[in-house]
Amino acid sequence: MAVKIYHGDILFTPAADRMEIHENSYIIVEDGVVSQICEKIPETYNGVEVVDYGDKLIIPAFSDLHVHGAQYVQRGIGMDCLLSDWLNHYTFPQESRFQSMEYAKNCYDAFVDEMILHGTFHANVFATIHRDATNYLFDKMEEKGMYGYVGKVNMDCNSPEFLIETTEESLNETEKYLAAHEGSKKVKTILAPRFAPTCSEKLITGLGKLAEKYHCGVHTHLVESIWEAQEALKLFPGYGSDAEIYERAGLMDHGPSIFAHVIFPSEEDKRIMKKHGSISVHCPDATVNIIAGIMPLQQMASEDLKIAIGSDLAGGHGLAIYRQVARAVQLSKLKEFYEPNESKTITITQAFYHATKEAGSVFGKVGSFETGYAFNALVIDNMEDQWTKISAQEKLERFCYTGDDRNIRARYIDGELLK
Amino acid sequence: MAVKIYHGDILFTPAADRMEIHENSYIIVEDGVVSQICEKIPETYNGVEVVDYGDKLIIPAFSDLHVHGAQYVQRGIGMDCLLSDWLNHYTFPQESRFQSMEYAKNCYDAFVDEMILHGTFHANVFATIHRDATNYLFDKMEEKGMYGYVGKVNMDCNSPEFLIETTEESLNETEKYLAAHEGSKKVKTILAPRFAPTCSEKLITGLGKLAEKYHCGVHTHLVESIWEAQEALKLFPGYGSDAEIYERAGLMDHGPSIFAHVIFPSEEDKRIMKKHGSISVHCPDATVNIIAGIMPLQQMASEDLKIAIGSDLAGGHGLAIYRQVARAVQLSKLKEFYEPNESKTITITQAFYHATKEAGSVFGKVGSFETGYAFNALVIDNMEDQWTKISAQEKLERFCYTGDDRNIRARYIDGELLK
Repeated sequence: MAVKIYHGDILFTPAADRMEIHENSYIIVEDGVVSQICEKIPETYNGVEVVDYGDKLIIPAFSDLHVHGAQYVQRGIGMDCLLSDWLNHYTFPQESRFQSMEYAKNCYDAFVDEMILHGTFHANVFATIHRDATNYLFDKMEEKGMYGYVGKVNMDCNSPEFLIETTEESLNETEKYLAAHEGSKKVKTILAPRFAPTCSEKLITGLGKLAEKYHCGVHTHLVESIWEAQEALKLFPGYGSDAEIYERAGLMDHGPSIFAHVIFPSEEDKRIMKKHGSISVHCPDATVNIIAGIMPLQQMASEDLKIAIGSDLAGGHGLAIYRQVARAVQLSKLKEFYEPNESKTITITQAFYHATKEAGSVFGKVGSFETGYAFNALVIDNMEDQWTKISAQEKLERFCYTGDDRNIRARYIDGELLK
Repeated sequence: MAVKIYHGDILFTPAADRMEIHENSYIIVEDGVVSQICEKIPETYNGVEVVDYGDKLIIPAFSDLHVHGAQYVQRGIGMDCLLSDWLNHYTFPQESRFQSMEYAKNCYDAFVDEMILHGTFHANVFATIHRDATNYLFDKMEEKGMYGYVGKVNMDCNSPEFLIETTEESLNETEKYLAAHEGSKKVKTILAPRFAPTCSEKLITGLGKLAEKYHCGVHTHLVESIWEAQEALKLFPGYGSDAEIYERAGLMDHGPSIFAHVIFPSEEDKRIMKKHGSISVHCPDATVNIIAGIMPLQQMASEDLKIAIGSDLAGGHGLAIYRQVARAVQLSKLKEFYEPNESKTITITQAFYHATKEAGSVFGKVGSFETGYAFNALVIDNMEDQWTKISAQEKLERFCYTGDDRNIRARYIDGELLK
């Protein structure tokens, strides 16, 4: 058995209201999995290699549960646009370029490298409608050792001609994509209808059958804006809520159901999501950039709904999930300021929990350092001024608010140091 | 006459609604001052050295019109606190350490270096009540070639014992500070009563006399929260608005009047500010971190009130003003979402204007590249992916949203390249 021991200030969040901090401690990793944390190394481990990170922070790596890989090249531009202009002038033309494999390779290589640079080792990624390019992204993430879900996007209506599929083509291409990756381990397929307004009922129903046949979950946008929620129900008459569209198609029965934004959930949406253990993905910067409102995060968490954090690149402008942790705290303050009855301020502990352990739960045991969790970890450096001591928790907070990739001194996936 | 010519994509905002972009052009700088911008170098300049920055952006350097230098060491920590806890647990104890010159030197050295690293060459800085440390900050900024205003803070009531002055002491120390810097050029003194709730009427009135004697302006917080606005009027009975406190004392007659936050200005506040050409400083991240609301920026601008951008470190968590430019756009969207009748969404052009030309106006001719402006400039690099062209304006936007100090390839103050 391969055993390694790391020393540092070890910090993780086993629960939304509990940050566990082991300063000046050792974490023992056996075959890439956390075995125990201790202040003194037990004698049985005599002779085992110890990597000493001094008083640097050792924290779980991040998960990004909603990100558009193909929108990497439009990050931080076009932000003055309204959503419809942004989609039509930037996103749709941009996504159509992924019929070129050369373009796709350039973009996805940079995208995956930058996720890892920022300590995101587990990601749930929207690609585009193009199967070949989506396969390339899938393979790239696998090659890099990431945990992930990758979805070939589906859209067969209410979209520009150059980015549309026929219903049959969409289902056929999707099935080929799913079949090609059956039995994959760390990166897996997921179904990714863009959202109800760009999918026919026939397409959604067909995807439900594929979900059953290939044991797939679903990743889409849900009640992301007042417009989207209303439009979905207009295009799907007879349905009582946005979530019901995916539920009735059987899309929530065979794998994780992951919904981006969830800003205006109805009671019925929440009932359905709770029943299926769905995850709602809060994407703070994106939700501000596209003027969609603020998720009632604390309120939803108190109702036992699962919540993760996402970058939503390129509605969001950056890939760093630690920054979205800080932003989630900030937006919760504004939510309470403007809508005190709807949701309350959250803490850095809670936001970090949603971005690590709770988000990680869809990938298996990642995002925490409890026994049995993969040692997917970041070593955080240089968060302290030499002339003023701050605590380990303050170092984490400062990293989330002001740190960048230069502060990530080392990255481990499954106990392996990334070079 | 010393002449130098720089080639690149030159970009600045002569007005709030106009971004002037000269791609592939030359900017001619004589004795550190912009002479002209042209597509072809006039023959009279034959033989003059040309520095070629290719298609990199050349933009005016930033101004930070509200920043607490002494709070540098608490950036990005304690952000879960309410304002009162944040002040009592972090800020006040922290500021009291500036009686130690060694502590002050460590902090102010790092603070000034980091401002310059992020392209802020003009700053209006709150120090602490301590005269020696404030002098050190003043000298440090001058030594580095910055333009600035530096204020020794005044507070004589409603504050912890360890951070209070008597009224007399406060006035005496302030006068010594002002006298020591009479006739200074690029860095100047300014009066800095913390805010009305921590200053007696006698102190404010005394400061007004010093303003007249030493020709000083004032820098303070104004209607920064509902609490502050109410508290000020409670402690200053007979005054009709927060701004009137400073006006009646004569603090707005002898130099710039610069007010941080200005989130809830009354009609009377606005009338007084307009009369004196005061600048209101929008500090987006700070205003979110301390749950104070969002400035009605667009509304105020449309009423011809002057507006600048500030980091408000450490209410804000970072010194990069370009990031606050992006954040100002973001917050304006949330303001419109929640209070559509109060203020509208602004553009990146407008936000950049407030952070460069309008903010710069208190320092003289900086913040633009019109003829006669100091060549205080940044060269911005690596904002484009190799496989996708974007425009000069998009490069600026991406820099504001996602760039960092690594993207600032060169820095010029008064035409001199900083090493």
